Amino acid sequence: MAAFPVDAIAESLARLRAATPRVHCITNSVAQPLTANGLLALGAVPSLTINRREIADFAAGADALLVNLGTLDDERIAAIETALEVVGDAGRGFVLDPVFIDVSPVRCDYAKALIGHAPAAIRLNGKELSALSAASTPELAAAARDWKTALAVTGAVDRITDGHSHASLAHGHALMARVTAMGCLASAVIAAFLPVTDSPLKAAVAGISIVGLAGEIAGETAAGPGTFQTHFIDALAALTPQTLKERLVIRDEDF
Amino acid sequence: MAAFPVDAIAESLARLRAATPRVHCITNSVAQPLTANGLLALGAVPSLTINRREIADFAAGADALLVNLGTLDDERIAAIETALEVVGDAGRGFVLDPVFIDVSPVRCDYAKALIGHAPAAIRLNGKELSALSAASTPELAAAARDWKTALAVTGAVDRITDGHSHASLAHGHALMARVTAMGCLASAVIAAFLPVTDSPLKAAVAGISIVGLAGEIAGETAAGPGTFQTHFIDALAALTPQTLKERLVIRDEDF
Amino acid sequence: MAAFPVDAIAESLARLRAATPRVHCITNSVAQPLTANGLLALGAVPSLTINRREIADFAAGADALLVNLGTLDDERIAAIETALEVVGDAGRGFVLDPVFIDVSPVRCDYAKALIGHAPAAIRLNGKELSALSAASTPELAAAARDWKTALAVTGAVDRITDGHSHASLAHGHALMARVTAMGCLASAVIAAFLPVTDSPLKAAVAGISIVGLAGEIAGETAAGPGTFQTHFIDALAALTPQTLKERLVIRDEDF
Repeated sequence: MAAFPVDAIAESLARLRAATPRVHCITNSVAQPLTANGLLALGAVPSLTINRREIADFAAGADALLVNLGTLDDERIAAIETALEVVGDAGRGFVLDPVFIDVSPVRCDYAKALIGHAPAAIRLNGKELSALSAASTPELAAAARDWKTALAVTGAVDRITDGHSHASLAHGHALMARVTAMGCLASAVIAAFLPVTDSPLKAAVAGISIVGLAGEIAGETAAGPGTFQTHFIDALAALTPQTLKERLVIRDEDF
Repeated sequence: MAAFPVDAIAESLARLRAATPRVHCITNSVAQPLTANGLLALGAVPSLTINRREIADFAAGADALLVNLGTLDDERIAAIETALEVVGDAGRGFVLDPVFIDVSPVRCDYAKALIGHAPAAIRLNGKELSALSAASTPELAAAARDWKTALAVTGAVDRITDGHSHASLAHGHALMARVTAMGCLASAVIAAFLPVTDSPLKAAVAGISIVGLAGEIAGETAAGPGTFQTHFIDALAALTPQTLKERLVIRDEDF
Repeated sequence: MAAFPVDAIAESLARLRAATPRVHCITNSVAQPLTANGLLALGAVPSLTINRREIADFAAGADALLVNLGTLDDERIAAIETALEVVGDAGRGFVLDPVFIDVSPVRCDYAKALIGHAPAAIRLNGKELSALSAASTPELAAAARDWKTALAVTGAVDRITDGHSHASLAHGHALMARVTAMGCLASAVIAAFLPVTDSPLKAAVAGISIVGLAGEIAGETAAGPGTFQTHFIDALAALTPQTLKERLVIRDEDF
């Protein structure tokens, strides 16, 4: 039996739209507009302040938290620390997106420290994973077990694991790499699924599935990265549980 | 006789395009690109710095000021204070947009303090109005009179009043709520009309009319929130006084 | 013989796509999304952090640097100073974009100080040039010689000079002035060409040529500034050396 039946993923989309969860996104300034528009298109509600005097109020009422390390200035770091306390005390989860940690050792160290705060899920690319695990070919399932997290490594094939169950997906489109902040948005979408799924792993599979399918659909009509971004947002809004049931392919693989 | 003849609103659009007013926008980082593009499409000129060393120069030469409380960090607060002094001394007006004050008590208190600086107009949604007035069903006209401001409460129906004259509009489109910063942009558009109308109330009616009509037109061809945003900017640029005269319906209601 | 043969410009585009240079962009918050998407569409890689603890790592590995003075807050100034040291020590170049210095004397003074750091190229509009040179009709070639830089003054006609050779171009489209951050993006594109051309002047000619042609092509199908921006990004990605050879006109003029 498949660990991730497509029907269950499809139903979580319906639950998300009924629940309209608010995701508080501490994310980089470049990704903010696409992240907000992607969450709104999906059916969630974004909030994005990083002001240290307000972050506790925003985080306290949020249904999930995204911590993205892009454009990581002092105010963002202060916001992350306060938000993690509030969300941790409330027993709610957060998704970590350690953007570009392969370029900045300072940021990489900070990402490692954040793993100590038990992120429900981490989404990153292969280079970022190597930087984080200090192994040139990190073993994904072992890393997920060590870090006690759902790990989503995105690329031409997306691989997701909590160290025990595994899924791989090959949806998406080459133009996704030509639009800024698509990965950042995928992390925010995983966060939006945390409150409507019964495990971070399922939230990660649902989020990556939906972003991948929307990308695949947008790629069918896009004339380039400009129209792709526009069509992607349309596709995210138009996706139905029925479309997911018809098109989604989740492979159950060991890695 | 109608308090807001459509022809007068239509003529203010022609005046705005002739005057190309510069609106200095202290606004949240998420809203900045759409706000700038919306003002440019309309025929105005945006400037957006929040640097405390420069804000006096930018505010001094601006034709109007927008103060939007989203992503309200320390630098924005310092910028707001300096800009309000400069604009107040020059006798020019500002529009207040108290984003998300229903989520953050700190921000709500700050919004109340800013009302003491006599905003020409305030644009907000129903939840934000309730937070500001501390009444579960605030009486709109009374609030406008108390605060000596033109109040625009946007939603499925937009209601605008200065406490003496009233207008309601039912243009716009459901997809406006699925694109981030559409309300923020509407506030900036009201600010752009301040220097080309003879009262803040008329500026508010003109701004809300034009944003609503552009939304209505964009909704006719949009396939989702992605194409909606693109078509909205096109519609804002293409709107003519003639189209306003043909399509705009302003109801004169008591509330 | 033409100083700037179209074939050489066309070949530099092929080199850029093979090299995928990373451009570190210290740029204003409004321009960040378009700048990142434009560079990705072109075939380069953007990075955009301004955190003072990380900027040295990001600048050290970058192939070129953009210094844009929009929304110039304290953190951006600190980032600029560190980045210029790192890039200067490595013998790599930077492009200066002195946005809106005609509005802010403080910013104008800062731009003048940055010219002392020997920018490879400066891109600005006519008003900004006048502010910088303190002459109402500054002599372009003399300014370029004084400042030892490639100077690109963009407008309906773009003029580019290092004080010795000169080029003018009349591509582009009127809608470019109705989309925020198009000039900022042009400066980033010049920076992307620095590592794949043998002089800053050629990088400036290549960057302005490609942005102008993409604008011209986008303008052929755009219905307004919204669709223009989308089509522009598509056109930037679709531009080939062959299209450049067929369409590009570079005039060799004295000014």
